[in-house]
Amino acid sequence: MSVFVTRRIPAEGLRVLTQASGCRVQQWDSEEPVPRAELLAGVAGTRGLLCLLSDRIDREVLDAAGPDLKVISTLSVGFDHLALDEIKKRGIRVGYTPDVLTDATAELSVALLLSVCRRLPEAAEQVKSGGWTTWKPLWMCGYGLSDSTVGIIGLGRIGQAVARRLKPFGVRKFLYTGSGPKPESAAEFGAEFVPLTRLAEESDFVVVTCALTPATQGMCNKDFFSRMKKTSVFINTSSDPAAHRERYLRHKEHHGSAGSQQPAGRAARGAHAPRAEAVMA
Amino acid sequence: MSVFVTRRIPAEGLRVLTQASGCRVQQWDSEEPVPRAELLAGVAGTRGLLCLLSDRIDREVLDAAGPDLKVISTLSVGFDHLALDEIKKRGIRVGYTPDVLTDATAELSVALLLSVCRRLPEAAEQVKSGGWTTWKPLWMCGYGLSDSTVGIIGLGRIGQAVARRLKPFGVRKFLYTGSGPKPESAAEFGAEFVPLTRLAEESDFVVVTCALTPATQGMCNKDFFSRMKKTSVFINTSSDPAAHRERYLRHKEHHGSAGSQQPAGRAARGAHAPRAEAVMA
Repeated sequence: MSVFVTRRIPAEGLRVLTQASGCRVQQWDSEEPVPRAELLAGVAGTRGLLCLLSDRIDREVLDAAGPDLKVISTLSVGFDHLALDEIKKRGIRVGYTPDVLTDATAELSVALLLSVCRRLPEAAEQVKSGGWTTWKPLWMCGYGLSDSTVGIIGLGRIGQAVARRLKPFGVRKFLYTGSGPKPESAAEFGAEFVPLTRLAEESDFVVVTCALTPATQGMCNKDFFSRMKKTSVFINTSSDPAAHRERYLRHKEHHGSAGSQQPAGRAARGAHAPRAEAVMA
Repeated sequence: MSVFVTRRIPAEGLRVLTQASGCRVQQWDSEEPVPRAELLAGVAGTRGLLCLLSDRIDREVLDAAGPDLKVISTLSVGFDHLALDEIKKRGIRVGYTPDVLTDATAELSVALLLSVCRRLPEAAEQVKSGGWTTWKPLWMCGYGLSDSTVGIIGLGRIGQAVARRLKPFGVRKFLYTGSGPKPESAAEFGAEFVPLTRLAEESDFVVVTCALTPATQGMCNKDFFSRMKKTSVFINTSSDPAAHRERYLRHKEHHGSAGSQQPAGRAARGAHAPRAEAVMA
């Protein structure tokens, strides 16, 4: 029985596989994603596939694998890279890692939020460039969470874990939106279910933690960004890189030309979050 | 009645002073600290002095001010820049800002901690330099707070505010040290009072929030750093810049030469904290 692993993964995981009796492990032993041709060759005849978010597992891959493929595990919370219809049709079972990264994702979301609102990357840059001479009362202050309104798009496991961590920072009000109200989850934070437009308008901090589905794709579009306060911070830890960022950058460009430099700058850092999200996927 | 203000300060503060009847405000209207000679000239004959942490208010300044000086306010939590004995002797009253910055200092302490442990400055650098190609499961992971031990030096207002914010990140155990146990403050976090040496040895994260006094000066010395785990993170938000940093960098050098690159790197970022602390003073 053979298993194909599409990337260098934590040693513990590989050990479990190699120690399983009768399990022959083939691996794309690299930090970089497996090239498509290698993936197609690698899966041929395997019983199991351990893949990552960066591997598109579609009909072509399933065909290349052949009828022996019985199980696919993805080292990710998201599974929009898997052609689930095709996979189901063939009776292949799918494993993923929904809970294991909740804490890390929430922690990193809060880290990004604090880092942006407190201007740490800029401040670190100033230390390096010698721009930091002495403490200046009005310099690099940023914005704090005390008495702020935080809007969470998707109050699922990760959204709740983010809210739980932000609460003791003195957040005044949590808003959330999603497919419908979740009174039980919201109660812990006194969070109010609101339409997306109101969340955009009232939040000082917006954290996107929803899954990428047809319903959420491109949800934070030009209209959304144009409703946001000029001082608000946008942290995207969801799985949708392109649609958001592209629209977002268009908006930023628009704002930049309107001369509001600072919000555009703050927002630009927010726009880096989709790169950081990859760490957490 | 005249007041000398040693720096450009928030407009609201200046407004209160200028609107006070009979109050003539003179100001060193700059983002940079007032030069000593200007300070000595500026205070001459004033009734009030509004200064910052960067102004050393000693006998020379008090002499230059003369007998009319009745009140000194410092825009800071710390007051080790004030020669309190001399000030008391002359019957001058002192104001400072002990509570107003507690939340901001705690928030920034947590921001620095997360930023260092999750390697955000390095990661941001990699985004800019093009080093970030795709998500790599074993790259830039850093260390998380889940199940960690956090050691707090000085469980005062700020120390408690830091612990309160870190608790929901899943910290397993809080240790603290200081002049003596504070069971009432510690109960909220289940924090254990330990000697400084044990705190150094067992903590994954050390946060220094104590005031700078003769008893705390140089507390985190070479011995302290040599006891720390190689992977632990040191965040200094106290008012002691020189002593800690100098000793710390010596330790770092020693570690660096021992070939343990990564801990030295992590520690170096921690050593930047004393610069950041100035924002919060």
